Amino acid sequence: MSGSREGAGTRGRGPGRRPGPTETREKILAAARDLFAEKGYDGASLRAIARAAEVDPALVHHFFGNKEGVFVEAMRFPVDPSVLLPHIMSFPPDRLGEAMVRTFLQVWGDEDRRAPMLAMLRSAMTNERAAALLREFVTSALFGRASQATEAAPLGIQAAAGQMIGLMMLRYVLRIEPLASASEDELIELVAPTLQRYLTS
Amino acid sequence: MSGSREGAGTRGRGPGRRPGPTETREKILAAARDLFAEKGYDGASLRAIARAAEVDPALVHHFFGNKEGVFVEAMRFPVDPSVLLPHIMSFPPDRLGEAMVRTFLQVWGDEDRRAPMLAMLRSAMTNERAAALLREFVTSALFGRASQATEAAPLGIQAAAGQMIGLMMLRYVLRIEPLASASEDELIELVAPTLQRYLTS
Repeated sequence: MSGSREGAGTRGRGPGRRPGPTETREKILAAARDLFAEKGYDGASLRAIARAAEVDPALVHHFFGNKEGVFVEAMRFPVDPSVLLPHIMSFPPDRLGEAMVRTFLQVWGDEDRRAPMLAMLRSAMTNERAAALLREFVTSALFGRASQATEAAPLGIQAAAGQMIGLMMLRYVLRIEPLASASEDELIELVAPTLQRYLTS
Repeated sequence: MSGSREGAGTRGRGPGRRPGPTETREKILAAARDLFAEKGYDGASLRAIARAAEVDPALVHHFFGNKEGVFVEAMRFPVDPSVLLPHIMSFPPDRLGEAMVRTFLQVWGDEDRRAPMLAMLRSAMTNERAAALLREFVTSALFGRASQATEAAPLGIQAAAGQMIGLMMLRYVLRIEPLASASEDELIELVAPTLQRYLTS
């Protein structure tokens, strides 16, 4: 903490001025981005991120809740699994498939959220380091969590995710017709039974 | 384009020497790459490719069969739909889903074929021109052809393709477990019923 204040002080802001919450937040995110890139998701602990940002770990908790929250913000990951999954699970069990389709359409239909998602996928397709980072995050924060929340087998959850990722690529990236113009209801009718089977059998 | 031809001539082949079949083939492919990039798949006719390569259209037919064949070679597209689809359709109708899973696993499991596929997808994710090129090709050569060959609705075919594309991304690019280590039989049991439903209902 004190180090950070001195650092900030020497970089030409008024002497003695304490960094505001926005600056501290940004400093944590910058440190997190570096650490995630260097050590991967599993390798970068919240404590190490706090140390690199020269802040107290309690402050990281205060701003972002947990490591997942830091990652989501730092990598501009467009969905927070700890919000998304409870939302899907709030649907009745016989409508899980539908809930998952609706959620994907909502996230991917929004260009501001689609762009960072595509950027991460693109990096993962080129770069083993980026692939490992995304793999670790998705495995622990998304699939691991989903396994705990449902009775679905891990393979079933991943098949369901694969269905939606591929469908979103064809609909929003390649914009293949008639998929690109299909209504939400058509898509639910088309793939919700598939997801329902994956998530409940 | 004429610049490139003169360039080739001046780069030390003997004057008056006629290009051999390999050179002619490469010349057609280079012209095709330029034209596909410039005009898209639909906009680049076989005749125009021949003209740009300064060869007789019959020669393009001779080397590549049709425009689809030129595209597959020029873009190093790792599958030729005119070979792939008849192969899938040669399975009994109640095993179409299984045939499609097997075919995807075979193509994506081979790193030499996966790499160019990923390269095209990656470009399409960044570049609208590349997306249009892939969209047009996939629409006419793959989905259009599949619609003719099966009774499946276009949306069903695209949902099936989406399932496999997303699954392949998770298995081979992100290498998420347990999907990455699942056996062929496990994957067939997992997703063949899905594809079967898409392709036959």
